[in-house]
Amino acid sequence: MSQPSPDTLQLTGSGRLRNFLTIDALPRSILEEILDTAASFVDVGDRSIKKVPLLRGKTVINLFFEPSTRTRTTFELAAKRLSADVLNMDIARSSTSKGETLMDMLRNLEAMSADMFVVRHGDSGAVDYIARHATPEVAIINAGDGRHAHPTQAMLDMYTIRHYKGGFAGLKVAIVGDILHSRVARSEIHALNILGAEEVRVVAPRTLLPADIDSLGAKVFTRLEDGLRDADVVIALRLQKERMSAALLPSESEFFRLYGLTNERLAVAHPDAIVMHPGPINRGVEIASEVADGPRAVILHQVTFGIAVRMAVMSLCMSGRETEREAAHAAAR
Amino acid sequence: MSQPSPDTLQLTGSGRLRNFLTIDALPRSILEEILDTAASFVDVGDRSIKKVPLLRGKTVINLFFEPSTRTRTTFELAAKRLSADVLNMDIARSSTSKGETLMDMLRNLEAMSADMFVVRHGDSGAVDYIARHATPEVAIINAGDGRHAHPTQAMLDMYTIRHYKGGFAGLKVAIVGDILHSRVARSEIHALNILGAEEVRVVAPRTLLPADIDSLGAKVFTRLEDGLRDADVVIALRLQKERMSAALLPSESEFFRLYGLTNERLAVAHPDAIVMHPGPINRGVEIASEVADGPRAVILHQVTFGIAVRMAVMSLCMSGRETEREAAHAAAR
Amino acid sequence: MSQPSPDTLQLTGSGRLRNFLTIDALPRSILEEILDTAASFVDVGDRSIKKVPLLRGKTVINLFFEPSTRTRTTFELAAKRLSADVLNMDIARSSTSKGETLMDMLRNLEAMSADMFVVRHGDSGAVDYIARHATPEVAIINAGDGRHAHPTQAMLDMYTIRHYKGGFAGLKVAIVGDILHSRVARSEIHALNILGAEEVRVVAPRTLLPADIDSLGAKVFTRLEDGLRDADVVIALRLQKERMSAALLPSESEFFRLYGLTNERLAVAHPDAIVMHPGPINRGVEIASEVADGPRAVILHQVTFGIAVRMAVMSLCMSGRETEREAAHAAAR
Repeated sequence: MSQPSPDTLQLTGSGRLRNFLTIDALPRSILEEILDTAASFVDVGDRSIKKVPLLRGKTVINLFFEPSTRTRTTFELAAKRLSADVLNMDIARSSTSKGETLMDMLRNLEAMSADMFVVRHGDSGAVDYIARHATPEVAIINAGDGRHAHPTQAMLDMYTIRHYKGGFAGLKVAIVGDILHSRVARSEIHALNILGAEEVRVVAPRTLLPADIDSLGAKVFTRLEDGLRDADVVIALRLQKERMSAALLPSESEFFRLYGLTNERLAVAHPDAIVMHPGPINRGVEIASEVADGPRAVILHQVTFGIAVRMAVMSLCMSGRETEREAAHAAAR
Repeated sequence: MSQPSPDTLQLTGSGRLRNFLTIDALPRSILEEILDTAASFVDVGDRSIKKVPLLRGKTVINLFFEPSTRTRTTFELAAKRLSADVLNMDIARSSTSKGETLMDMLRNLEAMSADMFVVRHGDSGAVDYIARHATPEVAIINAGDGRHAHPTQAMLDMYTIRHYKGGFAGLKVAIVGDILHSRVARSEIHALNILGAEEVRVVAPRTLLPADIDSLGAKVFTRLEDGLRDADVVIALRLQKERMSAALLPSESEFFRLYGLTNERLAVAHPDAIVMHPGPINRGVEIASEVADGPRAVILHQVTFGIAVRMAVMSLCMSGRETEREAAHAAAR
Repeated sequence: MSQPSPDTLQLTGSGRLRNFLTIDALPRSILEEILDTAASFVDVGDRSIKKVPLLRGKTVINLFFEPSTRTRTTFELAAKRLSADVLNMDIARSSTSKGETLMDMLRNLEAMSADMFVVRHGDSGAVDYIARHATPEVAIINAGDGRHAHPTQAMLDMYTIRHYKGGFAGLKVAIVGDILHSRVARSEIHALNILGAEEVRVVAPRTLLPADIDSLGAKVFTRLEDGLRDADVVIALRLQKERMSAALLPSESEFFRLYGLTNERLAVAHPDAIVMHPGPINRGVEIASEVADGPRAVILHQVTFGIAVRMAVMSLCMSGRETEREAAHAAAR
């Protein structure tokens, strides 16, 4: 199996996770470790006491430069179920406007002995930049940056696929919709390729495909029927209305007519195909209600698995760093 | 005593509390259980460590579709004193505007393994609707919906009355002010009748009385002096300025002249009458400062009891569900 | 040493801390106790589990009448590391606009069995007023009021100075910048004088000096070079742009030219002089980047020490009150 080159920003010297920024350079073993660790957390949500003490006494700061109540909630819940102390900072509303630079703000938060920043940012690459300049003491988790990556969303999707399909070998996965503006799609294509899916497809009008799509490792389809044929997994993307300039798309109803998922269109997919969506869904735009509420849809299970996957990523970054520190101490003696 | 018909939305098969939505269909035994349970929590606020572990590891989500810092604070405090993890979602500011339906949003939060939603909503009946459509796994507490109900406020008022008067038999209770817009008044009238108060009075100008007032089980007075005569308990309502169209009332000072509580007017009440108010008070509108700060007023004790009553409602809903689940498991074996 | 007259608002009968409002009337022994207690908390931030159980089961309410994400965050973190339950109330956005008076709102929060209010207010003296009228059950911590005081900031600065200089005897400390609008400067001048610094200097243009500067116990310099000469500690103040009317100052670049800290200007200070700043810094206005990022700067250490100092103030107020209550109980027996 070909391993990507070592990624010192995301991995410790001994190859354990230390930050979680993007999926593309991570080895398959790390992705599998995240999925296996998440599996051990899924039942925490079913317990009477939904808490494990793994991050007790740790300080997790949710740094949201772009507001997202839903994503913030999932990370807050994951951190609390790991027994961490959580602080929410809504930066758009806070004092960054007071003339302070981003790096000065981060240095300040680091100086408060924070252990982890969960960062959401509107600019592609902003979380990477933060990780490159942050103190080594603080773990950085990417909660979505611009059009670049949304790696925890991709990993919860991988968890869902593995849960329902048993693995990735031989799978045909179709990602349908606004690929151009979707950080989720980019992260998913990387993850599916690393985990060994047979065929990763993107299905979209040319105007909603990124220029570099051919280098991403996905097969391009512009007709929905072609893209769905024999697919084992269908992932509908949210139509990011707020990000699209009007010119790219005639209208929502036109989109639904051409790319919206209906039972009729899904008839060409594999009979056991599952339908996924990162949420929140636009009913009647990218997905018909009959599909969203039908037996193929596993959308709400994605949400449940999402808490467990975020708990896994958080705890793996912390334990990777712990091991690294212990090794450094041992070497110093 | 006539028992209302069984209420499967609020009660388990064995008659324990599972949701707390409205007082009108609840049996007297449940209301008394809430009051008795609250009594056991009142002293938690006096302890050095103000916490009991009853909801440890449970996830409580405050879903506020209508902003109310004060009510949200009392529920957040009650949940934390029960050791729950609390998430605040201010929906007005969040992503419901992104085109997601209410039910899709709820399904998502349910999928995060939430245990309880505390819901405040501007529309009458909205909390009922949510309880009807929510998964059975999640307990729903009504924190005020439109003009319909505010049952925890009513129960803390019942607690206060029982604390000062020893019980309800033989009591004359006068509710004074804007009955029309008050969810508190409706819930109080139900609670007082179920608990066996001798006479429930409402005192208001005709324009501030609801059309169905005769069917609610209260005696109507339009002159304050008549309504207060021999009353053991006087409950002033907040004048909901923001809800009143100008036409209903000449002016605030006119309201105070006719319905504002003063020591002089309270002279016709029972010498030991207590004066209550749900807060926040409008001094010089529905209540004079001499009354609000005087010996009859028990307004701040209502606040203290309110934390205990909310702890009681939350813990009873959780234990009712626990018992229900255990019974279901036992039956399945 | 002359002791200030006993301060019953801040001290218990036996001279222990009960509120923390302003530094000017406190005895040196209390300031030293705060610094010593903070020293015991500094290493909590380095531990794997950053928590001590001193305020377990206590309710701390952050009452911010003036928004300040940064200061609120430091107090929230300090309270959580002491294991307290924390509620944030952003009063500007909350229901005080509903016609409720400040005192009614406070009485309500007190009635919820709160143990501590951390108060930030835009008006000088507002926190003092609150402490004078609050129930004796609640400890009040001043998190900054108008131009009056910011005592926890001053104490973290004292901690930083003692950490780097070993003590205060013989020290020359220069406070540079907008003295007029700075609550930090007033609190620092008091603290430095009480702790026995040799010389406290303020360095500012006449237009940014308060009228009562001569009575505060600081030596006034209007030329930066004179004020920095032989200084052991240099504290740059933030230029409070949002508080200054345009007339007081020609421009930011003019301010930097005359009062901005550069390496060249600091050459006249003591070779081991440290440079401090309460943050957030305005690079190129009150401080050059070469200084802020250089070896003299201890600005981020101030932040780290700030958490420990706030933990110290919070826990001392709570234990002072505990002792007071026990003494009262013993006397009542």
